[in-house]
Amino acid sequence: MTKAEHPRASGRSPRGGPPAWRGVVWPLLISAVALGALIAVLGFGLGTPEDLPGAASPDATTGGGTHPSETILRVTCALAAVAAVAALGGRLARRLGQPPVIGEIAAGLLLGPSALAGLVPASTEVFFPESARPLLSLLAQVGLILFMFAVGSEFDVAELRRSGRVVGVVSQASMVVPFVLGALSALVVYREFAADGIGFIPFAIFLGTAMSITAFPVLARIVQESGLARRPLGTMAMACAAACDVIAWCTLALAMAVAGSGGPWGAVGTVLLAAAVTVVVLRVGRPLVRAAERWADRAQVPVAARVVFLLLLAFSLARLTDVMGVHAIFGAFLAGLLVPHRPGNRMTAVQTGIDSLNRKLLLPLFFVTVGMTVDLTAVTGRAGLLLAGVLVLVVAVVGKLAGTAVTARSAGLPWRTSLGLGVLLNARGVTEIVVLRAGLEAGLINQNAFTVLVVMAVVTTVMTGPALDLLKLSHRRTSAAPGAETASPVTGDAKEKELV
Amino acid sequence: MTKAEHPRASGRSPRGGPPAWRGVVWPLLISAVALGALIAVLGFGLGTPEDLPGAASPDATTGGGTHPSETILRVTCALAAVAAVAALGGRLARRLGQPPVIGEIAAGLLLGPSALAGLVPASTEVFFPESARPLLSLLAQVGLILFMFAVGSEFDVAELRRSGRVVGVVSQASMVVPFVLGALSALVVYREFAADGIGFIPFAIFLGTAMSITAFPVLARIVQESGLARRPLGTMAMACAAACDVIAWCTLALAMAVAGSGGPWGAVGTVLLAAAVTVVVLRVGRPLVRAAERWADRAQVPVAARVVFLLLLAFSLARLTDVMGVHAIFGAFLAGLLVPHRPGNRMTAVQTGIDSLNRKLLLPLFFVTVGMTVDLTAVTGRAGLLLAGVLVLVVAVVGKLAGTAVTARSAGLPWRTSLGLGVLLNARGVTEIVVLRAGLEAGLINQNAFTVLVVMAVVTTVMTGPALDLLKLSHRRTSAAPGAETASPVTGDAKEKELV
Repeated sequence: MTKAEHPRASGRSPRGGPPAWRGVVWPLLISAVALGALIAVLGFGLGTPEDLPGAASPDATTGGGTHPSETILRVTCALAAVAAVAALGGRLARRLGQPPVIGEIAAGLLLGPSALAGLVPASTEVFFPESARPLLSLLAQVGLILFMFAVGSEFDVAELRRSGRVVGVVSQASMVVPFVLGALSALVVYREFAADGIGFIPFAIFLGTAMSITAFPVLARIVQESGLARRPLGTMAMACAAACDVIAWCTLALAMAVAGSGGPWGAVGTVLLAAAVTVVVLRVGRPLVRAAERWADRAQVPVAARVVFLLLLAFSLARLTDVMGVHAIFGAFLAGLLVPHRPGNRMTAVQTGIDSLNRKLLLPLFFVTVGMTVDLTAVTGRAGLLLAGVLVLVVAVVGKLAGTAVTARSAGLPWRTSLGLGVLLNARGVTEIVVLRAGLEAGLINQNAFTVLVVMAVVTTVMTGPALDLLKLSHRRTSAAPGAETASPVTGDAKEKELV
Repeated sequence: MTKAEHPRASGRSPRGGPPAWRGVVWPLLISAVALGALIAVLGFGLGTPEDLPGAASPDATTGGGTHPSETILRVTCALAAVAAVAALGGRLARRLGQPPVIGEIAAGLLLGPSALAGLVPASTEVFFPESARPLLSLLAQVGLILFMFAVGSEFDVAELRRSGRVVGVVSQASMVVPFVLGALSALVVYREFAADGIGFIPFAIFLGTAMSITAFPVLARIVQESGLARRPLGTMAMACAAACDVIAWCTLALAMAVAGSGGPWGAVGTVLLAAAVTVVVLRVGRPLVRAAERWADRAQVPVAARVVFLLLLAFSLARLTDVMGVHAIFGAFLAGLLVPHRPGNRMTAVQTGIDSLNRKLLLPLFFVTVGMTVDLTAVTGRAGLLLAGVLVLVVAVVGKLAGTAVTARSAGLPWRTSLGLGVLLNARGVTEIVVLRAGLEAGLINQNAFTVLVVMAVVTTVMTGPALDLLKLSHRRTSAAPGAETASPVTGDAKEKELV
């Protein structure tokens, strides 16, 4: 959806017109009715759970004509319900001046064992019905891979090269300080947070990485909405975030490699293999993909074939890195680097179409999955976990915010700008969630650590907006001016996105 | 894809320029390379079949991070391979002056046990890998439901009402004559063709229906490409085909109802229920859906929400008719009637987008599935089956062609036009395949009957073009004139489609 179609989406709070709550009543009512209808349909027309083998059994989907239509409807209903709840959460978050992803994760938390599923266990049957669960998990994974693919496509290597010395110094410091502090805090929380049987080294590398993440997409959105896109603070923050992204993906891959391979030599082998694959894919793949793209334009290859090509590219590289022992998200990101967004390009138009549907349908499924795996009630009762959580939060904020601000100040920037840069880079948002989920799946952290770190990611993202206001660095009033709409190519891409 | 992007798609044979075979070499070479790469990837990187529980086991997709990326890649590879082979078959068929769907079914036949899978059994592992089969079957079913949804959306009730007395008489005759002949021939082939345990009545109704089918989408395409779209013969054929469609769906539903319910009273109940549901859905549903559409336009509902709405509509009505004991395709068709195509409408744009992707990706999966279930080698060796096949073919052609032509002549049309009408209505194409598959799934006909009837459908469709040429009714030369491009609203919709 373009901006022109949805004028109220552009600001963090509505200016003039009806009060903010009015815009929430309708979506709430519609969602309530839709949910009620869904529950009724699921309960009434679809049969009882015992005669619903669904997708889990191969016989049910291949044989007979009865079961496929049922599985298809159940999966679509669950998808629709999750997408509706996520859209509602995202809309509420935007009204409160927060990035929509916060609302989506909050919606997931509310549906999960922390709230709704804890109180009414039967509600899980609506959002994640037993029979549709394998397919829904698969779709959530597809959503994650396609999201990382889009992040790779939007990653602007040229922009990074253009940025100056200050960006180089600040971005390194804004990675190193929280990384070291995070790795040190691993000494304290290792017993509480590490998954069973994981060594200290990979756990420390992972915790350091988790502390030093900056969410590039969320940052781009915040910069855009604070009217900072064309100011030095905004562009510098974006360049630093891009540099941080690259380093963070490397350290995360290192943690995965060390954890996955039995000993240090295995880790070295995996790292070397990953590096070699990255170089080969980028050096050999880029010209090949570019040639294929040119051929496709000349031969007027239809949209469907381009969709298949992009999906195959993303999924095969994701599978490759998965087989190598680093997570599927790296391959998807690599695949994205092979097909960078180019304005006016036909392939980019197809990519944008895939991405826009993915962000609204499949990616919310991933976030709701994350929210549903987080059980806040398991954490609140235990003092040790709470203390560890507070420590993690303090280390994350101090390391990122103070580390960045002090380095920027000593590089010659004024104090207010330095602090602003620290505040901006402290937003962890989507990227942190993706990293944490990968760490949980790779057996680097346990369920409690996952819960605590998700809360940390949400808190550091939520505090960005108010902190900018506090520093009087937000230029929101001016963002309505037409000039701000056509900011930099980087944010121009991000601005169209509703989610981040 | 629009016509402007693919100029060569408009004619049944290229006019001027390089010879026809030149356009086939490249796609063939590319497909061969792509297939080789696919087989290599599937054999090398994806692991051995024994450690691939895939989508069939719930643990594999929900637990761990390794299996999902594998299932996703396998399904996408199979989808890409099937879509590529189908596109190639469709393109070859077009070069030979045939509707593309003939090429897609032929591709499926060649991949199936009749040819490739019979000679090289391992090839099935590429197109329908064991681990991905449940998901691929599900996707083929989705493709079928979405296709029937599109057929319903394009169905022009108003056009049908406008057509005059001749159309009414001819369409009834062109249904009744082959239906009665088909039902009578059931006396001969019942022993050979009926599935185990099915009564004579439902079998005879089904065989009569199968004989009297006219493929509306294929016909629209043939009319368009023969330059007949704005001539009386073309519009009359289209109106007759639309009327035939309605009657055929009703008799098919009757056959299903009689077969599904134990006795005659059950059948009456099912028929009454189906009729009631149809009336309620159309009477109550149409204004509701129209109101929802208007609200969506006012509230600027994004594309993703519209996609979900349309999918839920199609899948829930498909599920409803499936539960009722008539096939899922009826519900999908009904759902299509609720959201008719309107030029310039936003919902229609979304529907067209879904349909265009579906026709290129998921629907070919359905046709290839059909092709792979057909085993010509099982039929060729048996004299009884061959004789029954010839009988079926003769009855189908004579009933439809002669029945229509004689009625049209006696209604006052000249002989050549009457014969032309008979030839056009004899094309059975896609619709027949869908009906046959439904009959096979509902246990009305056996595997051999399915094979023979598929061959009948292909032959009656293939003969349409040459027969029109023989009657010198084809105005292909004039179809390049600009006037022919903006024919009637019915064919205007169909013209954009590549498949039918």
